[in-house]
Amino acid sequence: MNKNYYCVILAGGVGTRIWPVSRQNRPKQFIDLLGTGETLLQSTYKRFLKFIAPENIIVTTNNDYADIVREQLPDLLPENLMLEPMRRNTVPPVTWASAEISRRNPDAVMVVTPSDQNITDNALGCFAEEMEQGLDYAQRQQRLLTVGVTPSRAETAYGYIQMSMKMAPNIYKVQTFTEKPQDEFAKIFYESGEFLWNTGLFIWSPKAFLNALNDVSGDYSAMIKDVQVRYSSGQNADEVVSELYSKLPNMTLEQTVLEKVEDADVMLGHFGWADLGTWDSVFINAPKSSTGNALVNNSKAVLYDCNDCLVRLPEGHVAVLQGLSDYIVVEEGNVILVCKKGDQSVIRSFVNNAQLDLGSEFL
Amino acid sequence: MNKNYYCVILAGGVGTRIWPVSRQNRPKQFIDLLGTGETLLQSTYKRFLKFIAPENIIVTTNNDYADIVREQLPDLLPENLMLEPMRRNTVPPVTWASAEISRRNPDAVMVVTPSDQNITDNALGCFAEEMEQGLDYAQRQQRLLTVGVTPSRAETAYGYIQMSMKMAPNIYKVQTFTEKPQDEFAKIFYESGEFLWNTGLFIWSPKAFLNALNDVSGDYSAMIKDVQVRYSSGQNADEVVSELYSKLPNMTLEQTVLEKVEDADVMLGHFGWADLGTWDSVFINAPKSSTGNALVNNSKAVLYDCNDCLVRLPEGHVAVLQGLSDYIVVEEGNVILVCKKGDQSVIRSFVNNAQLDLGSEFL
Repeated sequence: MNKNYYCVILAGGVGTRIWPVSRQNRPKQFIDLLGTGETLLQSTYKRFLKFIAPENIIVTTNNDYADIVREQLPDLLPENLMLEPMRRNTVPPVTWASAEISRRNPDAVMVVTPSDQNITDNALGCFAEEMEQGLDYAQRQQRLLTVGVTPSRAETAYGYIQMSMKMAPNIYKVQTFTEKPQDEFAKIFYESGEFLWNTGLFIWSPKAFLNALNDVSGDYSAMIKDVQVRYSSGQNADEVVSELYSKLPNMTLEQTVLEKVEDADVMLGHFGWADLGTWDSVFINAPKSSTGNALVNNSKAVLYDCNDCLVRLPEGHVAVLQGLSDYIVVEEGNVILVCKKGDQSVIRSFVNNAQLDLGSEFL
Repeated sequence: MNKNYYCVILAGGVGTRIWPVSRQNRPKQFIDLLGTGETLLQSTYKRFLKFIAPENIIVTTNNDYADIVREQLPDLLPENLMLEPMRRNTVPPVTWASAEISRRNPDAVMVVTPSDQNITDNALGCFAEEMEQGLDYAQRQQRLLTVGVTPSRAETAYGYIQMSMKMAPNIYKVQTFTEKPQDEFAKIFYESGEFLWNTGLFIWSPKAFLNALNDVSGDYSAMIKDVQVRYSSGQNADEVVSELYSKLPNMTLEQTVLEKVEDADVMLGHFGWADLGTWDSVFINAPKSSTGNALVNNSKAVLYDCNDCLVRLPEGHVAVLQGLSDYIVVEEGNVILVCKKGDQSVIRSFVNNAQLDLGSEFL
C-alpha cells in the first residue's frame, strides 16, 4: 500500500432528508440503512481499507457523534478521529484535515469521501483501482480532481459536473458545476452526454488544495500554519481550530474552491455509485418485489394493492398497507412518515415544520 | 330506581375490525378509542348506572379478560362478573345471564347491551328515558323488544330492522332483520324509511327470552334449570355452564331467536348512536379538522395535502403524512396500518393473513 495515500471520511452530516430514520442523535451514516449488516460509515471505512493504510484513514465528525464513531470503528486510531468544534459544511473539515495530513506527510495525496454513499464494484469498474488511478494523477499533476459517474436518469437531487477537454484517460477538465438542477436542466444535462453526476469524492494533495483555497477564498495560511505548529509541538490546538472553523466559509468545496479555480478536473468513475441522501435514492438502490415494492432492511410488511413503495420499519414491527402507489412508509422510534415519493424538498419542510409544531424530541 | 330492571353488558368480543388498536389481549371495549378519558366498557357501565341499580348490572366476558374488567370496573360486584367458558357469539352469554337474572328475581326485565358503542343524549332523545320506556313495555307485554335508530346513510356495515305495524308509541312489530346488506339493498333500505339500524340493544324479561329460545331453537330448559339449581344451592356450576355453552348455537340472537319468533318488536330510539365496530365508524364519530381529517385520541400528526383521513397513534408519537386522501393511519404497539377507508372487509382479511404470514404476536 502506498504510504502517501490518505483518506478523509466526512461523517459530521445530519442527513435531514431521510428523517425519521436519520435523527439528530444518530444521522444516517451511523445506520444500516439498506440492511447490509453494516452502517454506511462502516461500509465506507472498509471500502478504503482495501487500498489505504489504516493509519492514513481519518474521520471527521461532530463532537456529538464521537462515541458513535468510536463504537462503530473500534480500529480507528484515536489521533485519526478529528472532532469538529461546529457544523460549517465541508470546507472547514477538509481544510483542517488537509492541514493535518500535510503536516504528517508533505508528500501526501488524499481522497475526501462522504460517509453515506452506496458504492459497489461491477464489471465496468473497481472502486479501489479507480481511486488509485486518481490518487496517482493528483500526485503527479498537483491539480484538484473531482469524481463523476455517468448519469442514469435526469435526477434533480444530485449535483452535475460538465466535462470539457480530456486531460488523461478518463479524466477531463471541468467546465461547470451545477448543484441540484431544476427538472428541465436535469433533462438537458442527462441527454447531452457532457455531464456527470458529482459523487462528492475529491482527490488532491493537501498542499494543492490549501494553495487553491488561499488563492480564491482568502488567505487562511497563517491560521493553518498555527494549527500545524501546535499539533507538531503537542500543544492544545482547540482554540485555533475553532477560530479557523469560524473564519472559513460555511459552504461547500464546490462553491468555495472548485468552481473558482482553473485547475479542477473530473475523473469518470465506472464503479456502481449511489448517494443515499434521500428516500428516493434509497428506494432506487434497494431490491424490489415483483410489484416494485422495496421492504428495506428486511422490514416485515403485508401489502395489498400497493406498488413502488418503500417500507422501512424497526425490527419486530409490522406494517399492513393497502392501496398505496409510490409512497414512502417509514417508522423509527416515535415517528411515522408516510409520503409520496418524488418530492425531495417536502421531507426537509416536514422536519422544519415538525420542529416548530411538535418540539425537538421528534427530530 | 326500579329494582326489577337489570342490564347485561356483553364484553367478550374480540373486535377484529379495528385491529391493530383492538388486539386479542385487549379488545376495543377495553380501550379509550375516542379519547374521552374512559374506555368504551367504562362509558357503557356509567350509561346504565343512571337508571339501573349497581347490583343489577352484570358483565359477561371471556375468562381471559376477567382482570381487565375488574381493573376497569372496580365497583362491579364480583357475583355480577360472569366469565364465559368459551367464545360462542351472543346466544350463550345472554341465555346464561337470563337464567341467572330470572333466578335472582322472577319479576326481572333486562337490557342486553354491547360494550363498544358510542351513545349520546341529544335534543331528540335521552338514552336512559327511552330504555326505561322499553323496559316498562317489555315488562307489561312480555314481548321481545329490539332497539333501532333512524339510519343516516346507506351503511353496509350495520344490521337493519324493518318495521311493520305500530304496537305502541315509538314501538313497531318487526317485519324482517337483515345483517350487513350489500350496497344496493342498503340504499333501498335507507331510502324506504321502513328500516332502522339495529343497535344490538335488546330489552326483555328473562322468562320471555328463555321461553322463546326453547320454542324456536331446541329445548334447553332442563340444562338451564340445572344451572339455576346449582347457583341457588351454592354448588359449582362451571361444568353445567360449559355444557350449556357448547350445546347452544354459536350464533347471534337475531339468527337464533328474533328472526324466528312472532312476538319481536322494535323500539325507535332517538338518542345519538354509533357502533364503533369499524374504523370507518370511528372516523364518522370523531371530530374533524377543516380538511376533514380526524386525529383520534389527540394523536399528534402533521398533515400535508391530506383530507378525510383518520389518524390514531400512541401518546408521545407523531406521524408526518403527505398526499393521503381517505386513508386510515393507525399505529399501536408493534403494528402500523395504512389503508383506504370504505372497505370494511379488507381489515378482517388483513388480520387473517397477518396471522398466517407473520405469527400471532401481531394480533
